[in-house]
Amino acid sequence: MATVNVALGERSYQVHVENGALDRVGYFAERNRISGKAAIITDSNVCPLYAERLIQSLQDAEYEYSLHVFDAGEQSKNLHTVEELVNEMVAAGHDRSSFVVALGGGVVGDMAGFIASIYYRGIPFIQVPTSVMAQVDSSVGGKTAVDIAAGKNLIGAFHQPKLVVADPTTLLTLSPRVMREGMAEMVKHAAISKPKMLQTLQRLADEIDLGFSLTTIDHLPELITENIEIKARIVETDEKETQGVRAFLNFGHTLGHGIEASVPYGELLHGEVVSLGIRAALYLSTIHGGITEKESNEILRTLKALELPIELPAHINIETALAKTATDKKFSSGSIRFVLLNGLGSPELSTQVTAQDLKNALIHLTTPLN
Amino acid sequence: MATVNVALGERSYQVHVENGALDRVGYFAERNRISGKAAIITDSNVCPLYAERLIQSLQDAEYEYSLHVFDAGEQSKNLHTVEELVNEMVAAGHDRSSFVVALGGGVVGDMAGFIASIYYRGIPFIQVPTSVMAQVDSSVGGKTAVDIAAGKNLIGAFHQPKLVVADPTTLLTLSPRVMREGMAEMVKHAAISKPKMLQTLQRLADEIDLGFSLTTIDHLPELITENIEIKARIVETDEKETQGVRAFLNFGHTLGHGIEASVPYGELLHGEVVSLGIRAALYLSTIHGGITEKESNEILRTLKALELPIELPAHINIETALAKTATDKKFSSGSIRFVLLNGLGSPELSTQVTAQDLKNALIHLTTPLN
Repeated sequence: MATVNVALGERSYQVHVENGALDRVGYFAERNRISGKAAIITDSNVCPLYAERLIQSLQDAEYEYSLHVFDAGEQSKNLHTVEELVNEMVAAGHDRSSFVVALGGGVVGDMAGFIASIYYRGIPFIQVPTSVMAQVDSSVGGKTAVDIAAGKNLIGAFHQPKLVVADPTTLLTLSPRVMREGMAEMVKHAAISKPKMLQTLQRLADEIDLGFSLTTIDHLPELITENIEIKARIVETDEKETQGVRAFLNFGHTLGHGIEASVPYGELLHGEVVSLGIRAALYLSTIHGGITEKESNEILRTLKALELPIELPAHINIETALAKTATDKKFSSGSIRFVLLNGLGSPELSTQVTAQDLKNALIHLTTPLN
Repeated sequence: MATVNVALGERSYQVHVENGALDRVGYFAERNRISGKAAIITDSNVCPLYAERLIQSLQDAEYEYSLHVFDAGEQSKNLHTVEELVNEMVAAGHDRSSFVVALGGGVVGDMAGFIASIYYRGIPFIQVPTSVMAQVDSSVGGKTAVDIAAGKNLIGAFHQPKLVVADPTTLLTLSPRVMREGMAEMVKHAAISKPKMLQTLQRLADEIDLGFSLTTIDHLPELITENIEIKARIVETDEKETQGVRAFLNFGHTLGHGIEASVPYGELLHGEVVSLGIRAALYLSTIHGGITEKESNEILRTLKALELPIELPAHINIETALAKTATDKKFSSGSIRFVLLNGLGSPELSTQVTAQDLKNALIHLTTPLN
């Protein structure tokens, strides 16, 4: 078993990564002295797959629990669902001594974490991520949020989990498309911090449609752990994204979010727009950053191998994507902060990128990759 | 001018209390290095009275601002209003570099503070309390919340303001009933921490219907400041109510909340049920705590002088109030934590109070005060 420590003073916690860890959530909870009654929050996709095993593990450790399920999908990630779930939790007898268990992908983690942050003004929670995206990225770091009409993730809280338990074997039930989109965040991690992971990802790409080999499955915990280490070290340095370091994790996300917001929710998956955003950011990095064509191509080759989108779909309007980018929250007081690469594994938070640059980058995305 | 420091490490802030301070909010904001654009949140009662002066003071200090008004009343304190206001703020161009100004009473402070805690995962806010309740109690300490179907204040956050500016002259537009209810929290402060304030409150009582004399108005900042000092010292000791000390501020609130929840919102004001709750808590304190009849009577005499309710209205069902008390969030894991007095100014968090005791206390409230 691999364990990553996230060192944040009194908000420190451990991330356990292990094939089969789903059956040991109760054990880890007990070992981390988490007490009270568990409110399991999950969605309609994940519940039938994994809720029973999670419940069994909590019962084995003698935790009381209640189960709260919402309709899977980003369209559920709103205050209406929050209110419904909170009312259910109150009815189930949860008070300030309870804790939340988030069982699922990024949407579940974001919403269950937000609920934990505001229920009785904050109760502890455990992340049990079941998607690539959630395991390597969103379950660690304490960002929680829901969407409102004005935009995605515009309301939320920094609320660190007390424990994260990631079972890589839960990834085996993901569709190839969802598997691929999660890997876009691994490409991001490789690009900003650990370039040699690019080769590993290229090798994995071939297995996605066929299903992972047993050898690959054996090595999944290692790959997931590597990614969590990258995220954990950045979060430790800049927990609330005030120092400019955590912003490195937004590499590929600024224009990615703009593109995501310019089509109906769900048409493009988050990792897919991140893939597009990475290509755009690489284009700008060759202009304003120090990255070479050769280095940039190494990243693009990985995205391509993973069959992630690298060309802007024809129906997307560049002006719309640009306007959506400008209202995205990565901008502070009107000045544009943009993550560029000066080389593989060498990110920089730049203020040199202009609105015209952003437009050029989007136009660049309409050209085929050489 | 009186200034109270609330010492909470990196979350420390100052409370300025001064007649006319409303015109100096911008000045204080600048002096406290609060930067960015202001989102003023207020309600339909307070807006016409005080928004213009607040705006002028912000403009004098060269702050940009936007104004967001919701319908006055507890029934607005919900997630629906939160979402509307947040959407308005986004449309007005606020991002993570903005700050919120809460202008109004307890409802405004609770909701605007909660919005500040979740907007872009948290932005700073200034409390400008305009009611007795808000000035002496809710604007200090960082508790923010909204109501849901399952109960009042069940979701919220601990989010300390960056600054509190209290102008006691804003109290002069309050109706006598609202003035009185706010004074119930002063009686509570006196009871748990500063008994000699009881005499001051008894003297003030006569002036409520007539309007305060100029001498009284001159001395208001001192009285408000005394109360804020009491609250600040308790909050400093136990910011998140985990040590049992902040719970002292719940004196009179446990059964008070139960009574409040057993009638339609607004039928009884918060301070009115606190008054009833104080009498109930005094009854239990004479049984399980060390307070004498004479000491208890001194507090009851003050409530009576202030014309606050001390007898349970006949239509209130004791079983309902009891059931509502049992689901109140002051209970942790089923065990009842109840604040008793061992004497004037000497509170204790007791676990001796039984469900039968609570019922007896409610029955006691139906008897006339001797």
